[in-house]
Amino acid sequence: MPSFHSTFTKSSSLSHIFTKTRLRHLTTTTTATMSTESSLRESLAAKLTTINHHGDVIRSLKSSKAPKSEIEEAVKALNALKLEKTEIENELKAAISGGSDGSNSFNGMSRDTFRQAVVNTLERRLFYVPSFKIYRGVAGLYDYGPPGCAIKSNVLSFWRQHFVLEENMLEVDCPCVTPEVVLKASGHVDKFTDLMVKDEKTGTCYRADHLLKDHCKDKLEKDLAISSEMAAELKHVLAVLDDLSAEQLGAKIKEYGIVAPDTKNPLSDPYPFNLMFATSIGPSGMSPGYMRPETAQGIFVNFKDLYYYNGNKLPFAAAQIGQAFRNEISPRQGLLRVREFTLAEIEHFVDPDDKSHPKYSEVSNLEFLMFPRDEQMSGEAAKRLCLGDAVSEGTVNNQTLAYFIGRVYLFLTHLGIDEKRLRFRQHLPNEMAHYAADCWDAEIESSYGWIECVGIADRSAYDLRAHTEKSGVALVAQEKFSEPKEVEKLVITPNKKELGLAFKGDQKLVIESLEAMNEKEAMEMKATLESKGEIEFEVCKLQKMVTIKKNMLSISKETKREHQRTFTPSVIEPSFGIGRIIYCLYEHSFYMRPDKSGDEQLNVFRFPPLVAPIKCTVFPLVQNEEYEEVANRISRSLTAAGISNKKDITGTSIGKRYARTDELGVPFAITVDSKTSVTIRERDSKDQIRVNVDEVATVVKDVSEGRTTWADILQIYPAHTSASADE
Amino acid sequence: MPSFHSTFTKSSSLSHIFTKTRLRHLTTTTTATMSTESSLRESLAAKLTTINHHGDVIRSLKSSKAPKSEIEEAVKALNALKLEKTEIENELKAAISGGSDGSNSFNGMSRDTFRQAVVNTLERRLFYVPSFKIYRGVAGLYDYGPPGCAIKSNVLSFWRQHFVLEENMLEVDCPCVTPEVVLKASGHVDKFTDLMVKDEKTGTCYRADHLLKDHCKDKLEKDLAISSEMAAELKHVLAVLDDLSAEQLGAKIKEYGIVAPDTKNPLSDPYPFNLMFATSIGPSGMSPGYMRPETAQGIFVNFKDLYYYNGNKLPFAAAQIGQAFRNEISPRQGLLRVREFTLAEIEHFVDPDDKSHPKYSEVSNLEFLMFPRDEQMSGEAAKRLCLGDAVSEGTVNNQTLAYFIGRVYLFLTHLGIDEKRLRFRQHLPNEMAHYAADCWDAEIESSYGWIECVGIADRSAYDLRAHTEKSGVALVAQEKFSEPKEVEKLVITPNKKELGLAFKGDQKLVIESLEAMNEKEAMEMKATLESKGEIEFEVCKLQKMVTIKKNMLSISKETKREHQRTFTPSVIEPSFGIGRIIYCLYEHSFYMRPDKSGDEQLNVFRFPPLVAPIKCTVFPLVQNEEYEEVANRISRSLTAAGISNKKDITGTSIGKRYARTDELGVPFAITVDSKTSVTIRERDSKDQIRVNVDEVATVVKDVSEGRTTWADILQIYPAHTSASADE
Repeated sequence: MPSFHSTFTKSSSLSHIFTKTRLRHLTTTTTATMSTESSLRESLAAKLTTINHHGDVIRSLKSSKAPKSEIEEAVKALNALKLEKTEIENELKAAISGGSDGSNSFNGMSRDTFRQAVVNTLERRLFYVPSFKIYRGVAGLYDYGPPGCAIKSNVLSFWRQHFVLEENMLEVDCPCVTPEVVLKASGHVDKFTDLMVKDEKTGTCYRADHLLKDHCKDKLEKDLAISSEMAAELKHVLAVLDDLSAEQLGAKIKEYGIVAPDTKNPLSDPYPFNLMFATSIGPSGMSPGYMRPETAQGIFVNFKDLYYYNGNKLPFAAAQIGQAFRNEISPRQGLLRVREFTLAEIEHFVDPDDKSHPKYSEVSNLEFLMFPRDEQMSGEAAKRLCLGDAVSEGTVNNQTLAYFIGRVYLFLTHLGIDEKRLRFRQHLPNEMAHYAADCWDAEIESSYGWIECVGIADRSAYDLRAHTEKSGVALVAQEKFSEPKEVEKLVITPNKKELGLAFKGDQKLVIESLEAMNEKEAMEMKATLESKGEIEFEVCKLQKMVTIKKNMLSISKETKREHQRTFTPSVIEPSFGIGRIIYCLYEHSFYMRPDKSGDEQLNVFRFPPLVAPIKCTVFPLVQNEEYEEVANRISRSLTAAGISNKKDITGTSIGKRYARTDELGVPFAITVDSKTSVTIRERDSKDQIRVNVDEVATVVKDVSEGRTTWADILQIYPAHTSASADE
Repeated sequence: MPSFHSTFTKSSSLSHIFTKTRLRHLTTTTTATMSTESSLRESLAAKLTTINHHGDVIRSLKSSKAPKSEIEEAVKALNALKLEKTEIENELKAAISGGSDGSNSFNGMSRDTFRQAVVNTLERRLFYVPSFKIYRGVAGLYDYGPPGCAIKSNVLSFWRQHFVLEENMLEVDCPCVTPEVVLKASGHVDKFTDLMVKDEKTGTCYRADHLLKDHCKDKLEKDLAISSEMAAELKHVLAVLDDLSAEQLGAKIKEYGIVAPDTKNPLSDPYPFNLMFATSIGPSGMSPGYMRPETAQGIFVNFKDLYYYNGNKLPFAAAQIGQAFRNEISPRQGLLRVREFTLAEIEHFVDPDDKSHPKYSEVSNLEFLMFPRDEQMSGEAAKRLCLGDAVSEGTVNNQTLAYFIGRVYLFLTHLGIDEKRLRFRQHLPNEMAHYAADCWDAEIESSYGWIECVGIADRSAYDLRAHTEKSGVALVAQEKFSEPKEVEKLVITPNKKELGLAFKGDQKLVIESLEAMNEKEAMEMKATLESKGEIEFEVCKLQKMVTIKKNMLSISKETKREHQRTFTPSVIEPSFGIGRIIYCLYEHSFYMRPDKSGDEQLNVFRFPPLVAPIKCTVFPLVQNEEYEEVANRISRSLTAAGISNKKDITGTSIGKRYARTDELGVPFAITVDSKTSVTIRERDSKDQIRVNVDEVATVVKDVSEGRTTWADILQIYPAHTSASADE
């Protein structure tokens, strides 16, 4: 997942998933709201003018000693105007916050309240905690505690089953420590940066774009008195934030008078900070290295061996799961922006001339929320599309890209992501690298907004070419023809003598550029040379135009018999931010419901069994040796079957024990209340059934592993009707 | 896995697993061989003296013009002596090389030849390859290719099942990037070093002990003319290598005239090099950090939360699987000594007063090779012991330590490690840290010798105390008494006035030392003060003795009623080097057998299904649409059941297809040779059975997941007797 900062490359899926939250589409999609907001700001400004004017009137009445009744009348009118102003302010506030708060997605709470409830539960139950807490922690580093760790392991197992096994991918496992040359070739050493400013007195560092963004948002949300022109400008800044150069960012920071948030000291000009953790390999200090910022490069550099392993056949996909590192300037947003994270990446290598996919028909009928480029540009909303139509209408570039979009959709919804809060957003032209054919992000809505969790990019031949060039090892594929083909080939023959006379020391670079022309360019040049005798020609590496004359080269087409063609494969890259997916899953799974008495709200995670950190609890109803022996037997057979389970033999009430494990998202609870049969209770419905002791482990295993469903089980086993004392 | 270099701490299991190969026990176990070798060296020296003397005799005969016959007689005798010398030399060579080569363990090959055969196969089939090969690689970094990656994933899944799930451990997942303060507390910043020397002209770095070791081994193996005294000295140096200080190492290097191996330039004095990869967290450059050298610290710093998660109850174990990093000075030995590796570590927290284990009886009857301290010291061999006896006789310190030794034995042998080439070696007193109660290494024999793959150490309270002290957060546990207890407590009351007068500025450290006395020390002091009025007392932090007088403190015992006791738990730590286990497994699983014609040797890995990278291949016998359709159906149902499988629809002969997949260790092959029933062939026995198409996926799943065995299946299904054309 090559992941440059967009400021520098306007590139690739990668840049954005783990660097910035895009705002552009947020603004485009809220055009309707914007116009309301804009007219409200205008009304507010008008009302303020009226109020000021009215104040003047009252003051002049007073100074001219007007009759008391007249003054009182005027004050009454002023108060009425002030009330109207307050009303407009409230409407404006509501328009700004967008109105999506308080929707059902957040359990009827505001985004912030909902997030706080989720995060409190997650931290209290050790789903995750800030790392090195006893040493006051390090920003952007988190530990997964037991339930979080189990969920991560379940998500990764399912990823392996869904992608690696089902698609016969070649999985590899490469080191995190990476020598500089590799990341020089990929571009990370030069371009993987964020713009930073420093507090000029204390040296504290900030991300320049974050400060500007905070300033703009703050102004927009809290300063109701700004003009609608100013509001429009601030919104524009937010929309183009990722595209601003260091100079432009610096100018805006100066213009708005932004200072260091903690000290109010002045700030330095913005300058680039490389986001890789640097280190040194070996004891000499002569071999610089970095902790990899993505896992993809490990696959690219192994292309030759993997192609051979695959019997020298295309297409094939390689995959890697592993840690990646980004030395963020000032991490925020909890689990969404961290300095170390788990990526799962796929590089699917394919013939650029044939991007069809053999299993395309398995996904082409899927329908889900898509947000194509055109809809974003015209301010429309994301819409449900049939994937097959999106391909046939040319919205999605090719079958293979679409196949992975479909598979990602299935993967995420299977994990428990709410499909109504999942959309596939296409990159806008200025978000993509020049070489990319098409990019789509799987975005999941959370309390932080729409979060890019998976990037799916057709990166064409860029990565393999970069490593071919740097290493001198050709990372290419061959297609053997079943019978030799007559191929028309472009032949460009430079006349070195003439070129040498004309360009002297620049001759080599001019020849390189001439030879690199594609067929279209060459044939155009040929035509111009024949008609006009000379042509202006740009030599990129010299950064200038030169004049090419007719006698300097010959351009022709020749027919050759060829037995194979050699080409650089295209790469289609789905790249998964596992921690982000898991965090969004937490939010989508969390809900609260009243306890039996109705006095207290209880937390529940509705994880599907596939994801749940513990599949089943085993509770002896009362503390009693016989029941405990049965509980032990059930627990042992669950364990032997590989089903994670937890006994709770405390004497606490069954209701409290359920509440404790609902909060961990345990889907099934077995209560041992006899020696022969037991109760199984399902977490969300609270349905209970009776099952024989000898059968119970198999039943729980089958429903946990998806071989059957709770609905099926309800049909087979008798319901447990006697109301439990505790539920 | 706190893992200091033994030179500095003489510590802990950790030090050794991933830093050095121990030699001490190798020499002690070869005492018998040594005495033969020593007497052979003496004979050789004597023979050389005789030959020299005889040469003189012949020269004097010649110069004195003795009769020709007499000279011829003397020359004949000299030649006989030379023959005898050659014979002694050969015997000596054999004695040196030890005779264990060419045993069955190495398939009848020498260690080196065998290793080369294994490594060639592993690299050719992409089990692993040097990382960043197209850029000429980086020493000590390796990629796992598809089969290696699958094996690693299988080993880790089984580890999770065998340890985390079966023992209800709390798994955590902490970052690799670690702030300095944590590794300062653990001691790594100051002590995790190796001694390095530099080529004084080129600056190339070497590990000082490696150069000395190579020199000694080379001399011993290749220079037959050295005296038996010299040989004994060199062996002694090898034996104490790990205990040599920088000065001692430097002196030996000078004494033996050791120079830089590549350039023959002189070497610098040895100096310590810290083995951690250093980096900087955040953009300020003010927060130094390191890539963790082990995963254990992440568990220790979370002790408080984990103890709470476990309901404030002991014992419990936490576990972590993850990458660890060591910036080795000059890595060698392939996968055994690398700069980045996967560790799986367990920290079992237990009351120091009660190290019994509830499931101890499940392992106490196990019998396997153990190598206790006494046997190593007296030059005896490792021997089969019953684990229960080893505990009751006091060889193994406690039940919990023994329980983990037993579980590790079961884990490794289940993976396919040959139990005859697995031993548990106890650390010698000088290998252990002063605080450690007992340490055992699971060592596996490979072509490199006995390799430490798992360390199992009782580290007492060291780690939790170190972090308590540094962080100021008490990492302790409480035991609540069922009823209050009368506890006799030692009370030491310093008389600060008298101590201040006597020790001035040292007073604080003296008081600390006095208060830190244990009961025995304090009561002895009390007795001496009462009889003699004063006592000499060592204050460690002052590094001197002071005189304590009777009036300086009071020592007494008081009885108190207490409701609970607070204590620092002991830690028992099994720590697994996953890459090392996998490499040894490769060697133990590899064998060669002739092909049908007998002309060629074919490679096979006898991985058990649990470990095998691919469980099953599916071969249509001939290229034919109907057979391929059946093959597809079988492959799809295997995949849906989570059984990794590979179709091979090339037209290659079945024999060649078997050979290709035997080399990947695929245990089962399905050949589709009809539309209704197929052949399953087992890799090692080459047995074949007939199974219906509809049943085959279930049969392969059951035997792959260990629910049944191949032997059982052979009983049920008819053998496929018609000799295949290709086998």
